[in-house]
Amino acid sequence: MITLTTDFGLKDPYVAEMKGVILSLNQNAVLIDITHEVAKFDVREAAFALASAAPYFPAGTVHLGVVDPGVGTARRGIVVETQRGFFVGPDNGILMLAAQQQGIKHVYELVNPKFRRAEVSGTFHGRDIFAPAAAYLDLGVKSSEFGPEVTDPKTPTFANVTQKDGGWAGEVLHVDGFGNIITNLQPKQLPQTQTITLKIADLNLTLPFVKTYGDTEPQTAIALIGSHGFLEVALNQGSAAEKFQAKPGSRVEVLSV
Amino acid sequence: MITLTTDFGLKDPYVAEMKGVILSLNQNAVLIDITHEVAKFDVREAAFALASAAPYFPAGTVHLGVVDPGVGTARRGIVVETQRGFFVGPDNGILMLAAQQQGIKHVYELVNPKFRRAEVSGTFHGRDIFAPAAAYLDLGVKSSEFGPEVTDPKTPTFANVTQKDGGWAGEVLHVDGFGNIITNLQPKQLPQTQTITLKIADLNLTLPFVKTYGDTEPQTAIALIGSHGFLEVALNQGSAAEKFQAKPGSRVEVLSV
Amino acid sequence: MITLTTDFGLKDPYVAEMKGVILSLNQNAVLIDITHEVAKFDVREAAFALASAAPYFPAGTVHLGVVDPGVGTARRGIVVETQRGFFVGPDNGILMLAAQQQGIKHVYELVNPKFRRAEVSGTFHGRDIFAPAAAYLDLGVKSSEFGPEVTDPKTPTFANVTQKDGGWAGEVLHVDGFGNIITNLQPKQLPQTQTITLKIADLNLTLPFVKTYGDTEPQTAIALIGSHGFLEVALNQGSAAEKFQAKPGSRVEVLSV
Repeated sequence: MITLTTDFGLKDPYVAEMKGVILSLNQNAVLIDITHEVAKFDVREAAFALASAAPYFPAGTVHLGVVDPGVGTARRGIVVETQRGFFVGPDNGILMLAAQQQGIKHVYELVNPKFRRAEVSGTFHGRDIFAPAAAYLDLGVKSSEFGPEVTDPKTPTFANVTQKDGGWAGEVLHVDGFGNIITNLQPKQLPQTQTITLKIADLNLTLPFVKTYGDTEPQTAIALIGSHGFLEVALNQGSAAEKFQAKPGSRVEVLSV
Repeated sequence: MITLTTDFGLKDPYVAEMKGVILSLNQNAVLIDITHEVAKFDVREAAFALASAAPYFPAGTVHLGVVDPGVGTARRGIVVETQRGFFVGPDNGILMLAAQQQGIKHVYELVNPKFRRAEVSGTFHGRDIFAPAAAYLDLGVKSSEFGPEVTDPKTPTFANVTQKDGGWAGEVLHVDGFGNIITNLQPKQLPQTQTITLKIADLNLTLPFVKTYGDTEPQTAIALIGSHGFLEVALNQGSAAEKFQAKPGSRVEVLSV
Repeated sequence: MITLTTDFGLKDPYVAEMKGVILSLNQNAVLIDITHEVAKFDVREAAFALASAAPYFPAGTVHLGVVDPGVGTARRGIVVETQRGFFVGPDNGILMLAAQQQGIKHVYELVNPKFRRAEVSGTFHGRDIFAPAAAYLDLGVKSSEFGPEVTDPKTPTFANVTQKDGGWAGEVLHVDGFGNIITNLQPKQLPQTQTITLKIADLNLTLPFVKTYGDTEPQTAIALIGSHGFLEVALNQGSAAEKFQAKPGSRVEVLSV
């Protein structure tokens, strides 16, 4: 099984070209799209999508992630072998949030010409290098066969949580299509109270801390532990992100418990 | 075979999470998207999409429909077994338009913990309850094993046609991406004439009643029986919905024949 | 394997209806979307997407292309058999750019009632004629069984390159989601120099002629041979199409070398 996460959009033929390459090498591959609607060049958004979805796929799944502003330059292509599966893409951090969750075993550089297309374009390694690598991994080729071990893969600098005045400071990881504000704060960093006091960007908020969206009236702002296990700020049937002007990277603080 | 209809959009990882859960339980499941671009919380639009597409799938298909503003509250989750297949989702009407077309045999509540994820979030039953249920149904688990029979499933109140002054009054079911206005009036309620007189919202229209879009000049307004078997108002190569300001739920009357 | 290219969008149930019809006839068909986000009625854009993606699919693949403003009128439906596979859709040029690349062997009209749905609507031949034809071709039915040979299929008039003042004049084939301007000029028509002088619409440009986007600073305009083998004008991490006001069909000239 191979998943695909890119910023290619669904209008252009690029995703289909990658799928055609995979299926030409590996006709039984099962292909599942995570998303192709990542904002152009937004490695962080892609990393979040991949890290959100990967845990729900079977062991052995190959995850292909291609948001690649440095395509054709000196940036490396890599395969990451984890305790549960494989990640293939550029060495720019896109894969590491998801890979770290699974426990990284090895990282290798994709240089073996045997496992790429005969002709490699300067502009589309997703099709010419990463898609073939995913196809071969899914066929059982060992990740060590792709090239030399990489000991210093780029890791994302986003998504850190720090202690602050006895509370915690994190950030907005993602704003979803419902306008829910998904932060990187986890239950262990939060009070077990009925209301919670937060600071998002420069806004102080005291919100009911509930179990689900429908626990309040429509258009009421609430805090809850979302489906990914992180603190989420939502507006029942409305957009919290719009109301509170939050976006990925906005600072979030939870006050001392 | 399992189809998926949601309002999750294609940008977020939610659809992929559901697919990962299904494929982890049932690795040979064939997954087909109906649409994930239903307007947020629009149960009516989802019900129409599902009812439109379901008749074209093979007998035994499991249809998963998740537009779920009441997730985590007391609203039930259900499986509907019909003469032709299965429907899984929240008990809010989303499934019933499609299920009624196929002849409903039984409705059961989804409560058996054996057929859901071990940990059920308060906010994403699509992933934690409905996706596993679809996976197990496709594997052959009997619908009666999921829980007690439900005798009062919620049925949609939209999409009724009534007689009026010897004619018929219905409504706009859907406006498609071409701007075609799809109503719920059927051929038996319409004259077999070359023109037809309609009232859409407050607008009186007398339109050529033709067989297909290309039967007239571009930008000409026409009435025809669309591909779903309902009365449709279209503008050849243009948007009838924009021209006539029609939207789902707008009242449509056809005058006495 | 069957690919699908349409202007149906992903919000409406039309694509799923086609897939349901295919899978009802041919339950093992592997279905791959090229794109359904072609601009409505834009045969040219669909032809480009299909011609871009088709070369990457395995021999024997059936490509279904449906952008069909003339549906239900006298325009023919056709199957094109090439040296590498099959193309199915309306006879309006959508298939021919891709089919010509593969070497056309035969074109047949789709008239045999055995290989279409029992009831054919006037408005949706994608579902009622083309989807069944693709399903049967993938099952091994010979293309000659669908109907009489067609000797005069419509070929697209776009995408011609002509000599001009010792240089070449072509056009913009496509603007992709990154804003890259993809022309129909090929390497043999271009100088092998470090800069290139072009005219796009009425704009004279002298651009660095590089290997990949990252070879320059962000927001720098460049020319390069793109992943499809054509001259492309790009803005590193920006939209060249927006900057230079180029769109599909805009005239492009490369000055004499």
